[in-house]
Amino acid sequence: MSIRIGILGYGNLGRGVEYAAEACEDMELAAVFTRRDPSALSIRRKDVPVVSVNEIDKWKDKIDVLILCGGSATDLPVQTPKYAESFNVIDSFDTHAKIPEHFAAVDAAAKKGGKVAIISVGWDPGLFSLNRVYANAILPKGKDYTFWGRGVSQGHSDAIRRIEGVKNAKQYTVPVEAALEAVRAGKNPSLTTREKHTRECFVVAEDGADKARIEREIKTMPNYFADYDTTVHFIDEKEFNEKHSGLAHGGFVIRTGATGENGAHNHVIEFSLKLDSNPEFTASVLIAYARAAHRLAAEGQKGAKTVLDIPPAYLSPKTGEELRASLV
Amino acid sequence: MSIRIGILGYGNLGRGVEYAAEACEDMELAAVFTRRDPSALSIRRKDVPVVSVNEIDKWKDKIDVLILCGGSATDLPVQTPKYAESFNVIDSFDTHAKIPEHFAAVDAAAKKGGKVAIISVGWDPGLFSLNRVYANAILPKGKDYTFWGRGVSQGHSDAIRRIEGVKNAKQYTVPVEAALEAVRAGKNPSLTTREKHTRECFVVAEDGADKARIEREIKTMPNYFADYDTTVHFIDEKEFNEKHSGLAHGGFVIRTGATGENGAHNHVIEFSLKLDSNPEFTASVLIAYARAAHRLAAEGQKGAKTVLDIPPAYLSPKTGEELRASLV
Repeated sequence: MSIRIGILGYGNLGRGVEYAAEACEDMELAAVFTRRDPSALSIRRKDVPVVSVNEIDKWKDKIDVLILCGGSATDLPVQTPKYAESFNVIDSFDTHAKIPEHFAAVDAAAKKGGKVAIISVGWDPGLFSLNRVYANAILPKGKDYTFWGRGVSQGHSDAIRRIEGVKNAKQYTVPVEAALEAVRAGKNPSLTTREKHTRECFVVAEDGADKARIEREIKTMPNYFADYDTTVHFIDEKEFNEKHSGLAHGGFVIRTGATGENGAHNHVIEFSLKLDSNPEFTASVLIAYARAAHRLAAEGQKGAKTVLDIPPAYLSPKTGEELRASLV
Repeated sequence: MSIRIGILGYGNLGRGVEYAAEACEDMELAAVFTRRDPSALSIRRKDVPVVSVNEIDKWKDKIDVLILCGGSATDLPVQTPKYAESFNVIDSFDTHAKIPEHFAAVDAAAKKGGKVAIISVGWDPGLFSLNRVYANAILPKGKDYTFWGRGVSQGHSDAIRRIEGVKNAKQYTVPVEAALEAVRAGKNPSLTTREKHTRECFVVAEDGADKARIEREIKTMPNYFADYDTTVHFIDEKEFNEKHSGLAHGGFVIRTGATGENGAHNHVIEFSLKLDSNPEFTASVLIAYARAAHRLAAEGQKGAKTVLDIPPAYLSPKTGEELRASLV
């Protein structure tokens, strides 16, 4: 029988989960839950019911895993503990500093309800976390580096759009190639914020707006831009829509470390992603972990987990025998 | 209390495990077991006993995890099932085609003895297997590529040394940069053996040997070289010892796949290793999985496992709380 998936929240991520579930033969999208009026929400799959989240309790026995596609700022801190009592859930909570607190709240709820909840699933946190843990365990004497990009930062794009005279904007985070190369060469550089990433902004200004002022406001914005080498390009709306409507992203997790006599031998472990669509890729990771949650629940496990707690084989639709014969 | 490690077999890999255990604060090297006369084997750590393998049964209660450092051709198929009955064991069995058979034999023995055995640990099989499974689960519609090198192939070096007139030889497997770039660019190329790797040979010839014949014999050797673009460099013994005494290796596992409407969005997941010392790095992976075996055994688990069955957190000396606060 297929794994019955529910989606809560139909933004970019929810739409990505709709595609990702469809790509898996062992999955079936059972329902999309929304806080909006369901009759006002049109989803791609016309054969899948759209249901008000107020009705979600009626679906307890019809959903194997509920995928929470809300935001980390205000949605997930409330939703994940709330729904983990009644459903096996997956979320992509990505506020790194608050993960311990979120884990504790979700763990209590999931244990109370006898359900499995896997939190902070995606690529960072998620696949990048996995790679940090593997690499640290293997090379205890070493140094970690994470680079993000080239990719769109939604938060930075939003910050630019709040400036007076800005009609639209997109910000790309760009890793500094020379820094990446120094890390890969095993030089163990100590890198400042400015040395690791640059920020590239594409801005559509309102007619008659003072571009020099906009550029100055961007480049001096504390936290977001002041600590970085930032370039600002003013473009027209046509070019913006043609070239900057995507949500590409990616990044690099690198650990360098030494082994042997006086650390004579150096090693570089590198994991990288180059993604045309951040939300669709994140959704694909969520669906793989939904499969794992379903298996853990079938085994009778309960409580909150992160990607670090899940055996890799649980993500695959293949059996242990099939994996050992083909992918080990 | 420290995890008490035993090493069976003191070649390059065993010496690597000796270093790797020393780099871990929660590990203690308890003994090195050898098939040789123990009095004839000198190990680096003078405070660690060297014991004849014939006496190994006396150490059943003094070793938490025994690391088997023999070869895959003849040692491990016998040793791993044999010792898995009395010890928690780790091996680096790397004959991919025989993994299912080896797993079955080790699983039966480990279950009989109530022990945990993790087989085929290292980087390929091992870390590369992990990355293949993660990437396949996340991008079900896609294509896998593995490239090895630049690095020393022991088997190919041995094959050259068996040619008449060859005093010493080392063979490097080199990935073709253009093929790597085509894969990374998401072009999904179909690559022949010749298009993926080249082979570079450094040969010290005996005095008066016919170099043209040696080069011809290398380049036409079936299976080993005939299907590759092979270059042969004759060098003198001094240069050989100075420049080609290392055991560097590495490689790349890449999966490219598509998501979304008609697969409109492409993604590249890449994992790579650049290793100064293949045996020391492999040993570091073995030690991390020894930690996992110790934990699994403490939980009462039994039987054979591969890296695919082990939650990543089990490799780390940190607690779940520490990992969630620092590395997720």
